[in-house]
Amino acid sequence: MTSDFSIQLTSVAKQMETVLAAQLPEPAGHQSVIMEAMRYAALGGGKRLRPFLMVETARMLGNETEGVFIAAAALECLHVYSLVHDDLPCMDDDDVRRGKPTVHKAYDEAMAVLAGDGLLTHAFELLAMDAVHSDANVRLGLISGLAKAGGAHGMIGGQVIDISVSETDRDEALITQLQELKTGALIEYSVSAGASLGGASIAQHDSLKNYARDMGLAFQIKDDILDVEGDAELVGKAVGKDENLGKATFVSILGLEGAREKAAYLGARAKGYLKPFGKDGQTLCDTVDFVLHRSH
Amino acid sequence: MTSDFSIQLTSVAKQMETVLAAQLPEPAGHQSVIMEAMRYAALGGGKRLRPFLMVETARMLGNETEGVFIAAAALECLHVYSLVHDDLPCMDDDDVRRGKPTVHKAYDEAMAVLAGDGLLTHAFELLAMDAVHSDANVRLGLISGLAKAGGAHGMIGGQVIDISVSETDRDEALITQLQELKTGALIEYSVSAGASLGGASIAQHDSLKNYARDMGLAFQIKDDILDVEGDAELVGKAVGKDENLGKATFVSILGLEGAREKAAYLGARAKGYLKPFGKDGQTLCDTVDFVLHRSH
Repeated sequence: MTSDFSIQLTSVAKQMETVLAAQLPEPAGHQSVIMEAMRYAALGGGKRLRPFLMVETARMLGNETEGVFIAAAALECLHVYSLVHDDLPCMDDDDVRRGKPTVHKAYDEAMAVLAGDGLLTHAFELLAMDAVHSDANVRLGLISGLAKAGGAHGMIGGQVIDISVSETDRDEALITQLQELKTGALIEYSVSAGASLGGASIAQHDSLKNYARDMGLAFQIKDDILDVEGDAELVGKAVGKDENLGKATFVSILGLEGAREKAAYLGARAKGYLKPFGKDGQTLCDTVDFVLHRSH
Repeated sequence: MTSDFSIQLTSVAKQMETVLAAQLPEPAGHQSVIMEAMRYAALGGGKRLRPFLMVETARMLGNETEGVFIAAAALECLHVYSLVHDDLPCMDDDDVRRGKPTVHKAYDEAMAVLAGDGLLTHAFELLAMDAVHSDANVRLGLISGLAKAGGAHGMIGGQVIDISVSETDRDEALITQLQELKTGALIEYSVSAGASLGGASIAQHDSLKNYARDMGLAFQIKDDILDVEGDAELVGKAVGKDENLGKATFVSILGLEGAREKAAYLGARAKGYLKPFGKDGQTLCDTVDFVLHRSH
C-alpha cells in the first residue's frame, strides 16, 4: 500500500460526503426528523470502502463521470441502512457506530427503522436517475444487481443466518457462506457495478468478480481479527464483542495465526485476478493491502 | 357498485396471489426462515386494492399483459413491507393484521424488520425485470416513482408525521397531509404506474392522478369511519383503537356525519375525473363506490 493510496481513499471519501450531502433529501415538512435521521446515519463517517471500490473500478475502465458517484452514493445508502437496522435492539443491539451513537440511540427505535427504510428506498431512487448512466439498461442492471445483492439471497440472507444459526452449528463452511452473503454480496456488487459503469467486457467482469469475492472474504476475516486485536476507539465500534458472546468467527475456528494466513492467501489470489489490467489495476491491488493491514 | 365489480376485484386478487407466490423467493438455504416470513406477510390476505388499481388502469388503456401483474406484485410487496414495519412494537404495536398474527408475533421482531426489508428490496428487483415492460425507460419510471411514493417525501414521511406529531397539534389540514403521504402517495402511484404501463397521454395521466388523489383520501376517511363503526372480524385488525388512543382522525375532527359527507364529496369528484374515459372508466368508477361502501 502506497501513501498515494491513502490520499486517494481519503479523496474519494471526501467526494462521497459531498455527493451524499447533495443527494440525500434535505429536512423539510412536518416529517423533517426523518431526513435528519437519514443524514445523521449516512453523513460524516465510514471509510466508504464500497463506494471507493465502485468508483475505482469504473475509473480503471475509463468512466470517471459524476454518474458513478451518484451510483456509489446509492450503494452507500444501502450499506448504511443495513448498519442502522443491524444495530437495532432486536438485532445486534449496538450503541456506537462509526464513533457516534447509533441511530436508535440518537433518535429512537421507530425512527431508526424508518430512517433505514428511507435510505434503502432512496438507494433505488438514485440509481434510476438519468445522471447515473446514459444507457437505461445499464441503470436497470445496477438496480437489479443491488436488489439481488441486498436481498434475501444476499445481504439480508446473511444477517438472517447470523442471528438464527446457533454458534455451535457454525463451522468454517457456514461462516464463509454467512459472510459471503452478509458482507461479500455487497462488496462484490461494488466492483461488479463499477465494471458495468465502466463498460467491462465479459472476461473483465469475471476477473473483477473473482477479485471482489476473495478480497471481500479477506476483509471479513480481517474484521474478525480486529475484533480480537483492535482498539475500540480506532475501530469506531465495540471490540471484543465476538469473544464475549462466545461467537464463532474465523479467529475462533482457525486461530489468530490461521485467520491471518487465510486472509493473506485470499488477498494474494485477489491480486492475481487483476493481472489482465496491468498497471491500471494498481489502485484495486493496493485496496487488498489496505484491507489486510488496516487498523480499523 | 355492480356485482360484476366484486367478481372482478376477487378475480384480480386471486391472480395477484398466484403471481406473488411465483415471484416471491422460495424458502432455501440456511436463511429459509426469511423467505417464509416474507411469504407469510405477503400471501393469503388483503383486498389487493392497490394492485387492482394498477391492473385496471393499465387494462382500461389496453395493457393486460403479465408484466402489469409483475409490477402490481412489486407494488404489493412495498405495501406489505410498510404494514409489517408499521405493526412493530416500536411503532403501532399491532398483534393482528389481515386476520392473522402480525409478522413479529408469528416470528419475532428481528425477523419482522428483515422480512420488511426483504419485501421492500424485492419490489425493486421485480420492477427491473424485462418482463414488466419492453421499454426500459418505462421500467425506470416505475422504479423512480415507487421510490418517491414510498420514501421520505411519501409514505415513510406520512408514517413519521403519524408517530411524531402530537394529537393536539392535528387539525384537518395536517391529517389530510399525513394521509396524502401515508396512504395517498402509494394509491396515487398505483394508478399513475398503471397509466404509464398503459401508455397514457399526459392529459390522461393528469386526470387519473386527480382521480387517485381524491379516491385515496376518500379511502382513508372511510378507514377512520370503519375504526368507529366496523366489526373487528370483518376489518381484520383491531377497531376502536383510534378513539381509545385519543387519536385525531377525520371522524374526531369532522364528526361521523361530516366525515361521511366529505368522503362522498371526494368520491363524486374522483368519478368526475373519469369522464374523458367514457364507459371504459366503469371499473375505476365502481372502485370509488367500493371504497365508500366497503365493510372492511
